[in-house]
Amino acid sequence: MISIEDARSLIHSQLFTPKPAFVELENSQNYFLAEDINSDRDYPPFNRAAVDGYAVRFSDIDSGLKTFHIAAEIYSGEGFDQIVEPGRCIKIMTGAALPQGFDILFKVEHCEVLDDVVAIPEDEIKKGLNISQRGENVKKGEIIIQKGTRVDEKIVHSLAAAGIYSVPVFSLPRVHIISTGNEIVAVNKQPSDFQIRDSNYFGLAFQLAKFNIKPESHQLLGDDKQEIRDGISTAIGGDILILSGGVSMGDRDFVPEILTELGVEKVFHKVNIKPGKPFWFGRLYHKDLNKTTFVFALPGNPFSTLVTYKIFIEPWLYACFQNPGLKHYFMPIVHEKKLKDDRPEYFPVKLILSGQVSSVEALRFHGSGDITATAGSDGLAFFSGNKLELVKGDPVEFIPWN
Amino acid sequence: MISIEDARSLIHSQLFTPKPAFVELENSQNYFLAEDINSDRDYPPFNRAAVDGYAVRFSDIDSGLKTFHIAAEIYSGEGFDQIVEPGRCIKIMTGAALPQGFDILFKVEHCEVLDDVVAIPEDEIKKGLNISQRGENVKKGEIIIQKGTRVDEKIVHSLAAAGIYSVPVFSLPRVHIISTGNEIVAVNKQPSDFQIRDSNYFGLAFQLAKFNIKPESHQLLGDDKQEIRDGISTAIGGDILILSGGVSMGDRDFVPEILTELGVEKVFHKVNIKPGKPFWFGRLYHKDLNKTTFVFALPGNPFSTLVTYKIFIEPWLYACFQNPGLKHYFMPIVHEKKLKDDRPEYFPVKLILSGQVSSVEALRFHGSGDITATAGSDGLAFFSGNKLELVKGDPVEFIPWN
Repeated sequence: MISIEDARSLIHSQLFTPKPAFVELENSQNYFLAEDINSDRDYPPFNRAAVDGYAVRFSDIDSGLKTFHIAAEIYSGEGFDQIVEPGRCIKIMTGAALPQGFDILFKVEHCEVLDDVVAIPEDEIKKGLNISQRGENVKKGEIIIQKGTRVDEKIVHSLAAAGIYSVPVFSLPRVHIISTGNEIVAVNKQPSDFQIRDSNYFGLAFQLAKFNIKPESHQLLGDDKQEIRDGISTAIGGDILILSGGVSMGDRDFVPEILTELGVEKVFHKVNIKPGKPFWFGRLYHKDLNKTTFVFALPGNPFSTLVTYKIFIEPWLYACFQNPGLKHYFMPIVHEKKLKDDRPEYFPVKLILSGQVSSVEALRFHGSGDITATAGSDGLAFFSGNKLELVKGDPVEFIPWN
Repeated sequence: MISIEDARSLIHSQLFTPKPAFVELENSQNYFLAEDINSDRDYPPFNRAAVDGYAVRFSDIDSGLKTFHIAAEIYSGEGFDQIVEPGRCIKIMTGAALPQGFDILFKVEHCEVLDDVVAIPEDEIKKGLNISQRGENVKKGEIIIQKGTRVDEKIVHSLAAAGIYSVPVFSLPRVHIISTGNEIVAVNKQPSDFQIRDSNYFGLAFQLAKFNIKPESHQLLGDDKQEIRDGISTAIGGDILILSGGVSMGDRDFVPEILTELGVEKVFHKVNIKPGKPFWFGRLYHKDLNKTTFVFALPGNPFSTLVTYKIFIEPWLYACFQNPGLKHYFMPIVHEKKLKDDRPEYFPVKLILSGQVSSVEALRFHGSGDITATAGSDGLAFFSGNKLELVKGDPVEFIPWN
């Protein structure tokens, strides 16, 4: 049995290396960038009016001028090539480009205007007032978004602004999923009194959907060696194979044995973690194809499946896409909590927001079969110290679901 | 100009009421449940072995027995109808159903087995040991997931476990999006020196995609009254219309005027918020159809669009789906920060995780045109007090992007 840290570093010692590809901007959500994105021009691309108002030359004010004739109007989207005599101002709208030399802009509501003469407010004379300077946000050629960044609702603004309509992203791994267990039936079938429904497939599929990954196949296999052998054989050609069930110590837990038989190199089996101890990880190198299939075999209890995906597979997937992954937070726990044994234990928690500092509350929870406990939770918490009773205020690591 | 609180309560005073519909479980991700979900049976549905081991009757131990002959083996998924004589044990695998009367289960690795005789460990005699009791997580008929809950990777486990293959969800609103401004060009076109690209459409579309909403149309309109009038007319028949640009005080900010002309009742225009002051909200009641179109007109600066969507539209959408929405967190700020004026100001922040308590750091930020500043951010922060200089440790409200 190895530690969580050792398990994680063994998993991370080899990454799936996704090939670069291009997707259209409107289809790029949740993909990861395969290249740094550089700005195609300064941003703002011109000295930009930040308000509606009157633009003058600072030098004119310096010469003592306080009122200005309106020489022209400029609207956003327009160029301007007139010559404006000294001592005159320009009416300009938010978003428009200031002409060369006009370097101070007064808000329309701060000026007094009589016919076409504008009196400027004398208490806010400052070069550059209300003007976003060309290139003040980004200079042409500068990296605006780094490789490995996930395209989301904020990033898409920058991609669009830079004119990246065809987005360089990492292509997705081919993933196969297998659920095992005689006690498992498909969700749309009626279970016997001794069976439960296959929720793990949907849990895993929804997790992977957050990476835009759609599993190529899903099988539900009984606890029968030949059935498992045949099932795995058809699913082992992709990039990632995720199994649930059949990895523990029972007489019909055939998965580790059959994976080994099929040539998958075991990297480790069993981790000092609760829940999820029977977690199995291995790799199959296909010499003919010069590629590796990564095999994760998770314990079949739904909560164990969820935790081991979250703790081992999800961070590895982020790493494969060159992304640092979800942040973990340190927060105090609001009530005492007994831990069950000396394995590092993950439990579902809710965030609590009363007071100035946030904290987490452990939810009523019946152990690894109790999937409903996670329904109202915001994430998992984890205590890394070595005591078995947490007291109010003890800091725990909080891992948000999203 | 009204306060953020008043704006929010005016927006929330009328909700879009989505009709219930059914989607298949595998397509239900990110939908909101239109009904409470009840458990179709106890969960676990039987007294379930939590480990691989040997099950005995507690009464036999009470009578002084310490060793037991193995009478049978039970695997998961199997029923059992043999009669087992007193003083005998059953070998049972994780996930299998314990037969009537067997109420204590010893882990296989804690027992000594010689031929078919098992000696139980004497230091852990406790009725119910290693058994998940039928119904301990959920009783048949109990509500396991409430109406309004978003279907995610945890909830899908419970839906699957309860056999909900056809999921009752709220249908989605029909949304139209319009970007306005002579300075705006489509992302796949080359802007002139005085133009910028239309990033707001993609920003809004990606926000809505998180609700599975796909806009029915998108228009990019110049600052021309007739063009705007025609454009809005074709987009006003849906449930929600979101515009960006053209709502400020400029001479060509025609949007509010034209919305009123077209019969949209203005609920308010201008909010005491930075950025986003020119935000406009109204409703059009279609008498013939007995339905309302909700109209949100956002300022066109990308950051202003992002903030006003996040602060006003997103919470309203959650409310329409009967969901409480994203949690806000209170956290200390790590550095001093000057606020720009007396409007309540939203600024992009990064989470900082050093130390036992999390905090937020304000990012370098050039104001509402500076969309790149949000790229590395984890959310928005907001200080609700009335001072203009925050000092290290001042609590701010943190609104995560997700």
